[in-house]
Amino acid sequence: MKLLEDKILKEGKVLEGDILKVDGFLNHRLDVALIADLGADIAREFAESGANLILTVEASGISLAFAAGEKMSLPVLVAKKHRSLNISEGVYAAPVFSFTHKTENTVVVSKEYLSAADKVLIVDDFLASGNAAMGLLSLVEQAGAKAVGFVAAIEKMHQGGRALIEAKGVKVYSLACIKEMHPGDIKFN
Amino acid sequence: MKLLEDKILKEGKVLEGDILKVDGFLNHRLDVALIADLGADIAREFAESGANLILTVEASGISLAFAAGEKMSLPVLVAKKHRSLNISEGVYAAPVFSFTHKTENTVVVSKEYLSAADKVLIVDDFLASGNAAMGLLSLVEQAGAKAVGFVAAIEKMHQGGRALIEAKGVKVYSLACIKEMHPGDIKFN
Repeated sequence: MKLLEDKILKEGKVLEGDILKVDGFLNHRLDVALIADLGADIAREFAESGANLILTVEASGISLAFAAGEKMSLPVLVAKKHRSLNISEGVYAAPVFSFTHKTENTVVVSKEYLSAADKVLIVDDFLASGNAAMGLLSLVEQAGAKAVGFVAAIEKMHQGGRALIEAKGVKVYSLACIKEMHPGDIKFN
Repeated sequence: MKLLEDKILKEGKVLEGDILKVDGFLNHRLDVALIADLGADIAREFAESGANLILTVEASGISLAFAAGEKMSLPVLVAKKHRSLNISEGVYAAPVFSFTHKTENTVVVSKEYLSAADKVLIVDDFLASGNAAMGLLSLVEQAGAKAVGFVAAIEKMHQGGRALIEAKGVKVYSLACIKEMHPGDIKFN
């Protein structure tokens, strides 16, 4: 999506450790108009998906998921992140390793809000190694629900997450797909 | 605001420890249409405030702040929550005690995105003892910026947070103002 690619080229910064800093518009300071446009693009792409629920994970997936939910008239389920696996009975839980923070968290949703009848569109800010995606997909599987797609604002293709998700038969859609990046140089697919 | 009060009466649950559970529409599963309406109400109330930035804190303030940002055409700055006070030079930081989780966190924003020129509308999901509000106000003060208002979706009046904010000359606006609550019984102001 050209709008997002242009923004990344203009304001994104590639840092040491394969980190793309986009906190001026996507993560920390939110460019609300831009994110609303990204939500509209997701709604167009998944108009025929039959999704009845959007699933994201706190904190940086929330704004994009909310924007998509507005355009698709769908509720958004926000998976909580916990430090420990000390989890109550009323939830589905899955481990997720954070590439950025080098920590393992657990993602959790209440069983009350995810059921076998749900068709779930998963939305997150980044797709890299696919750890967060696999954790969220695990929650959907545990509920017996169906994932109709996985959306990332930004995909870092060289980290291989896409293949893991597609191997489960789930469509992957990225709004900006980075083939290669180095300080001062970002190449899109 | 009657729309939110009715929703709280219908779906909210008062738990032991003075906790109001609203995770079916505000915190965990997001009722996107409802939250968009709350955002529109905030935009009406603060149309003449001169705000040029909305400030919230991850994670459960983000959706309401985003909805208000959309209606007011303003960017949203999301304060990050850290466990420790191990903070870098490039940020403003303030301690916040969480009433719900009984833990002390630090809220942090990058100096890059908050400056003395800013007129800031603070938006959060709850106002109770005012700890989160005071932390966010401290960030605004550290930057030399001006807070033009504090908005909570739900205020628990009996916990006294409002007085702390108003003592700083900042207007408080709550979308639902709870005077008293007990299991099975919620009274609005």
